[in-house]
Amino acid sequence: MGRALAGALLAAGHRVTVWNRTPGRAAELLERGARGAASVAEAVAASEVVLVCILDYADVGTLVEQGGGRAAWQGRTVVNVTNGSPEEARAMAERVAGLGAAYLDGGIMAVPEIIATPGAFVLYSGAPDAFEAHRELLDSFARSVFLGTEPGRAALHDLALLSGMYGMFGGFAHAAALVRSEGGSVAEFTTTLLLPWLTAMADALPPMAAQVDAGDYAVTGSPLAMQVAHDSIGDVSRAQGVSPELFTPVFALMRRRVADGHGSEGFAGVVELLARR
Amino acid sequence: MGRALAGALLAAGHRVTVWNRTPGRAAELLERGARGAASVAEAVAASEVVLVCILDYADVGTLVEQGGGRAAWQGRTVVNVTNGSPEEARAMAERVAGLGAAYLDGGIMAVPEIIATPGAFVLYSGAPDAFEAHRELLDSFARSVFLGTEPGRAALHDLALLSGMYGMFGGFAHAAALVRSEGGSVAEFTTTLLLPWLTAMADALPPMAAQVDAGDYAVTGSPLAMQVAHDSIGDVSRAQGVSPELFTPVFALMRRRVADGHGSEGFAGVVELLARR
Ligand SMILES: NC(=O)c1ccc[n+]([C@@H]2O[C@H](COP(=O)([O-])OP(=O)(O)OC[C@H]3O[C@@H](n4cnc5c(N)ncnc54)[C@H](OP(=O)(O)O)[C@@H]3O)[C@@H](O)[C@H]2O)c1
Ligand SMILES: NC(=O)c1ccc[n+]([C@@H]2O[C@H](COP(=O)([O-])OP(=O)(O)OC[C@H]3O[C@@H](n4cnc5c(N)ncnc54)[C@H](OP(=O)(O)O)[C@@H]3O)[C@@H](O)[C@H]2O)c1
Repeated sequence: MGRALAGALLAAGHRVTVWNRTPGRAAELLERGARGAASVAEAVAASEVVLVCILDYADVGTLVEQGGGRAAWQGRTVVNVTNGSPEEARAMAERVAGLGAAYLDGGIMAVPEIIATPGAFVLYSGAPDAFEAHRELLDSFARSVFLGTEPGRAALHDLALLSGMYGMFGGFAHAAALVRSEGGSVAEFTTTLLLPWLTAMADALPPMAAQVDAGDYAVTGSPLAMQVAHDSIGDVSRAQGVSPELFTPVFALMRRRVADGHGSEGFAGVVELLARR
Repeated sequence: MGRALAGALLAAGHRVTVWNRTPGRAAELLERGARGAASVAEAVAASEVVLVCILDYADVGTLVEQGGGRAAWQGRTVVNVTNGSPEEARAMAERVAGLGAAYLDGGIMAVPEIIATPGAFVLYSGAPDAFEAHRELLDSFARSVFLGTEPGRAALHDLALLSGMYGMFGGFAHAAALVRSEGGSVAEFTTTLLLPWLTAMADALPPMAAQVDAGDYAVTGSPLAMQVAHDSIGDVSRAQGVSPELFTPVFALMRRRVADGHGSEGFAGVVELLARR
């Protein structure tokens, strides 16, 4: 990912200094005009904006230390796109501020191959001035989305989006298992039926989101009680030899919501069972 | 739903006879030119194609009986879009064939409001000749998709699509709970972040589907072992007071797949744990 981001900066005409723990891996970037740094301290000294992209958040602190003390960091901006938790982001923001630098925590919503293409975006939270000052540079990576000054927000929204993706992927896995159980082509099913269907059903998400914000789950169309009257998905899955383990939890949650007296309301009310308001 | 379907037939210029258990409910259709039948038998006698849309599949048999015997049904086509299981569809196909009529089982992938609009589609399985002969009529409802002669296929694919939808909805619910736990606007999150993200990630489904068909889950980008190295979604959810119950099962499945020695492969391999090949 670091290579893709540095490549995007070079493509946008920025001056780039790179450091990587294993030196050889920056070769292609050096050929494209990046300057190599022999140490983290050298990279920091050369750069107004210091972009950090390594595997584990736990190791970012070590790199910051290797960069130098307050004299080395003063006035710089740290953009850390290493994935971590909101708590880690808050701690890092404090540590970096203590060195006199501005801090932006980033969550990259893309694989390296789609960096600098439409569809990719990066979430940021932290120092608003730093975001504004370097926005053009950040936009070289992808669409930049600023989520506010609380440094943990990018990490939280990153994980929220991933949980949404795993929901969709889990739904796909169950559907694929059902179709395969009858000998059908999963590829044909996915392209001609599942994708158009999910695209149509995604239109239901913004109204459901508005209901969550309002705490009002009134619906006319498809009340929860009707949706859970039969467990057809579970029953048919079992009959086909398909484990319903990915579907059972959402069905159980819907049933709990009905048992709580909300059977005439819509699906989005299950959010109330997942988290305190 | 029956009202929406009859309305679409009228709009397309077909001659329509309607029967509904509670008579008054067909008033609007009668005004628009439908003819009313006083009994099921009268409706069947007036119609080459008999469309059945009631709440429970279990009651469809009673209606068939009320339609009359072999003399009444001979040569007609029954299109039953009442939701049921593949097994029920197979039994009904046999029963209707025994009365000398052709049988199509249908699964409506739409809410009544979007009948006869793009985005809606209806799955059919059963008699291929009947599908071809009445295709134009069926197309008045929505895009018609014929899935083959095995009568249970429409019901199975219907449930597969619903399971895909509940996966996506469950992912939304978890994401919404996380965003709300930090006081964020779920509506803004959904419109500006979740929908673009799910749209981008949906591009991964066709390649995953092809992997399921091939039983080959090799990937370069994002191996399962990396995806389950940390349970960040679970940990952060718990820290935020959000129950991870909708995410835990898919995470557990991914971990089982890694434990089975497939850590270097991609997500789609979890399908092998859901169903026998
Ligand atoms: N790949 C994606 O699709 C993707 C998407 C969104 C976010 N991300 C995030 O981006 C970050 C990097 O992921 P990646 O895919 O680029 O991983 P990767 O291909 O495994 O690369 C990891 C990089 O981190 C360096 N590194 C690891 N530990 C280090 C340490 N203790 N000190 C210094 N450098 C260290 C490695 O250096 P060596 O070359 O010396 O090993 C390597 O350059 C992660 O936080 C990941 O969650 C990745
Ligand atoms: N609504 C949707 O979004 C949707 C989407 C896809 C599929 N479907 C399927 O479409 C079918 C109908 O659903 P719906 O939404 O139209 O339900 P609904 O609004 O509750 O209407 C049910 C209809 O079935 C009739 N009915 C129920 N039991 C009957 C019986 N024993 N004998 C004769 N008529 C009976 C009712 O007659 P009365 O007027 O006399 O009560 C009413 O006309 C269901 O199988 C459903 O799964 C619905």
